[in-house]
Amino acid sequence: MEGPDGSGKTTQIEELKKFFNDKAYEVVITREPGGTDISEHIRSIILDVNNDNLSYMAEALLYAASRAQHVEEKIKPALEAGKVVICDRFVDSSIVYQGYARKIGIEVVESINRFALMGIQPDITFFFDIRPEDAMDRKVSQKSLDRLEKEDISFHKLVYEGYKILLKRYPKRIRRIDASKSIDEVKNQIISEINRFLEGGLY
Amino acid sequence: MEGPDGSGKTTQIEELKKFFNDKAYEVVITREPGGTDISEHIRSIILDVNNDNLSYMAEALLYAASRAQHVEEKIKPALEAGKVVICDRFVDSSIVYQGYARKIGIEVVESINRFALMGIQPDITFFFDIRPEDAMDRKVSQKSLDRLEKEDISFHKLVYEGYKILLKRYPKRIRRIDASKSIDEVKNQIISEINRFLEGGLY
Repeated sequence: MEGPDGSGKTTQIEELKKFFNDKAYEVVITREPGGTDISEHIRSIILDVNNDNLSYMAEALLYAASRAQHVEEKIKPALEAGKVVICDRFVDSSIVYQGYARKIGIEVVESINRFALMGIQPDITFFFDIRPEDAMDRKVSQKSLDRLEKEDISFHKLVYEGYKILLKRYPKRIRRIDASKSIDEVKNQIISEINRFLEGGLY
Repeated sequence: MEGPDGSGKTTQIEELKKFFNDKAYEVVITREPGGTDISEHIRSIILDVNNDNLSYMAEALLYAASRAQHVEEKIKPALEAGKVVICDRFVDSSIVYQGYARKIGIEVVESINRFALMGIQPDITFFFDIRPEDAMDRKVSQKSLDRLEKEDISFHKLVYEGYKILLKRYPKRIRRIDASKSIDEVKNQIISEINRFLEGGLY
């Protein structure tokens, strides 16, 4: 699940878990950055407001390190055990935030992450499409903001542009979700995409 | 300066600093992993004995992240200001420990680190050659050992083999130092190599 905080990902992850459980699939819900103790440790360095001189390249490599641990310790074993893994943000976040918005380069961040992924790719990615201004409005009142959330609106607009580029680049894997719709409408769209995938259609 | 702990690097770094200071060069002494506050933070994750399930790829990416920060925050600005930088371990340590001894692959670790280095390479690297058994003997009595130091002798033998491979691969950049010799003899060898470099010979 990709898209800004405040776009409704958390709610939909829970809905999707219920859907899979009803079909007798075991589900592992996880998130990035983080997902394992070591990854959380790494996450705390990335998000610490005191580390405002963290270089963009170091940031991209830390995300990749956190992801490598996450994939090896949690995602790969779950998939090998036949479970469904639903992840709140994954490699596309790095590509968009570090590669595009930080201007390190989409290809550079993809190359770095090829090492972290060890062959694992999402079957389907849902991009929760919401205008950056609206996502920020929903977010600001919620809680104290971390280092990335404190970036100004122009940064979040770049992130949004980045996702749009990825949507064009990976039209089969990434599905656009209109996050301005109601919870039920979004849920229905996600479930119909998943059903098509499970039936082996379109993918 | 590359080579196992206990091989005499620290003493020689101080000697080399004096040599450069006498020639009116400003010298920055630094080390890896670490070298900056953020890099030290990352180092603490790598060396924490509780993180014994840290994946090899995550370890390699953490070292690269730490190095990216170190290069951008400390090494590059020092070089640009005309200073001499002496570093206790650098990218060769990653290549040997993660690439060769952990078997991730020399080329994989070199590729990951190409992003971290941003074009920076040492002018000269000294490899302090000491048999792994002798280095361990010197080391064990010294202090509590961290996660890497606790690896058994077969690991340290692989590391030693890895350095020998790099010596063959980069015969111009990497100079072998016989670390079993006296402090003065080692010092003289290093200084004569440095003098040749400063005179523009052989390199």
